[in-house]
Amino acid sequence: MSLLVLGSIALDTVKTPVEERLELFGGTASYATISASFFTRSHLVAIIGDDFPKEYLEDFKQRNIDLSGLQIVPGKTFRWSGEYFNNMNNRKTHSTDLNVFANFTPTLPKAYRELPFILLANIGPDLQLHVLDQLQAPRFVIADTMNLWINIARADLVKLCKRIDLLSINDSEARELTEENNLIKAGALLRAMGPQYVVIKKGEHGCYLFGPDQFFSCPAYPLENIKDPTGAGDAFAGGLAGYLASHSNDSNSKKPVDFETLQQAVVYGSIMASFTVESFGPDRLRSVKQEEIEERWQAFKKLSAF
Amino acid sequence: MSLLVLGSIALDTVKTPVEERLELFGGTASYATISASFFTRSHLVAIIGDDFPKEYLEDFKQRNIDLSGLQIVPGKTFRWSGEYFNNMNNRKTHSTDLNVFANFTPTLPKAYRELPFILLANIGPDLQLHVLDQLQAPRFVIADTMNLWINIARADLVKLCKRIDLLSINDSEARELTEENNLIKAGALLRAMGPQYVVIKKGEHGCYLFGPDQFFSCPAYPLENIKDPTGAGDAFAGGLAGYLASHSNDSNSKKPVDFETLQQAVVYGSIMASFTVESFGPDRLRSVKQEEIEERWQAFKKLSAF
Repeated sequence: MSLLVLGSIALDTVKTPVEERLELFGGTASYATISASFFTRSHLVAIIGDDFPKEYLEDFKQRNIDLSGLQIVPGKTFRWSGEYFNNMNNRKTHSTDLNVFANFTPTLPKAYRELPFILLANIGPDLQLHVLDQLQAPRFVIADTMNLWINIARADLVKLCKRIDLLSINDSEARELTEENNLIKAGALLRAMGPQYVVIKKGEHGCYLFGPDQFFSCPAYPLENIKDPTGAGDAFAGGLAGYLASHSNDSNSKKPVDFETLQQAVVYGSIMASFTVESFGPDRLRSVKQEEIEERWQAFKKLSAF
Repeated sequence: MSLLVLGSIALDTVKTPVEERLELFGGTASYATISASFFTRSHLVAIIGDDFPKEYLEDFKQRNIDLSGLQIVPGKTFRWSGEYFNNMNNRKTHSTDLNVFANFTPTLPKAYRELPFILLANIGPDLQLHVLDQLQAPRFVIADTMNLWINIARADLVKLCKRIDLLSINDSEARELTEENNLIKAGALLRAMGPQYVVIKKGEHGCYLFGPDQFFSCPAYPLENIKDPTGAGDAFAGGLAGYLASHSNDSNSKKPVDFETLQQAVVYGSIMASFTVESFGPDRLRSVKQEEIEERWQAFKKLSAF
């Protein structure tokens, strides 16, 4: 089944302790749709300026991503610039130039409004709510967020949480939003805010999936070299959402998504994130082959089975 | 098969953000042998003063722990005092009074010298080497250590590593000893120092087991309340060693320990550690029932299987 993906498209400048790269193909919706494209067809909702490289637009098209919800407007595409330190776990944003993104208030194409699976990739919760308002009867809504929105748009984020099925959030954000240090307790507190399911991402330590009376501890793929963590969380959400959409075949069904399918979705999300960090920008993610995904699934299975 | 356990016996004063407890039953050998006692018979090598509570000595005896290698000498038992902060991951030592421990140079009882499984619990690497020197042909030697020895006895620790089969170490210590931030690389570097197997303990994030061309990511049991982390690493090592000794039944065999058995041993070690942190001191560990261990094994299986 099909997936709606809302998020940002950006040109990223990324610095690590080793290297700096300028104007990389980036944005939360870019990583999420590229990742989801290995599993299902995505319908993109985003905005770019007329300076956006044609090559990247072509990439979306070749991946069978529906661009009828993509606005291309005169002006400059959103730019982000940041730096990673030490063990790649600490990030500092150097600059955020919203450009055309500043006036983004998407109106969904009619065909989008009936889509069953929704990924609200990391973007302001006001925009996430604005898109949710236009949907008729979504079957499963996933939302990602970040510390920025916890700090400057907490009220909207709290409102959003009441209307989604799964929240994807990283460990420090979970602690910040719940004011609870213990992640097991934080997971329960986040579920109490609304979403039936919560994923807490722990970077190199894998992630937790919390459900009603259910819990899954997903390992991380053991990587010796992390080139650039940018987009890992978005590729995770995209892989998760894409797998879920492609493995829920009851059309028009409001049958609840089961925990076992969600567990697999979390594993596939983790696999896509593990590829993402192996290169600067989405290069490695873009070049992944289906058999590599399956190989890595086997590796995940092997490293955690006992 | 039987297990030799070398380590400290202490009376611990522990402070957490919530509570302080004085002169608790402690020491690395205490936690390790109590934990191992659920799996196998241990032969203890340690020293105490004549002030050591009879009640705790009785506990060792009731657990069928061989005390013929335990020295009881006039004077005061080793005392340690420390404090945990915030999320229990940061510890500060307030005082270390070696007392009778200062002159501990154990000579092994004759019957100990042929023991096949050896746990050198956390203690100075000079003492660990001193005990190793007295063994005839140990089948599998496990050593635990801590940051203190990396800082003040690195040369001995390096010497020790060449003579053991498995090193158990926590994440920050692994990074410190190898000067490598990436834990996957650090595991390989530690193996290159000597031990065929390495366990890197990551506290709330579980642990890694590294072997020749093999890798296991063991989850942590999801605990909402951690009362006191003291002894968790020792109980882990004791459970691991105890399980290993009890599941390697070829007497006098030098058959190598297989990775699958080690994986199970790591899971059982993690289970014992998870009980340990649920109370101050070893109270919870001491009261564990066999069926609770099996229940928790099922829980570990369930939370990580996909």
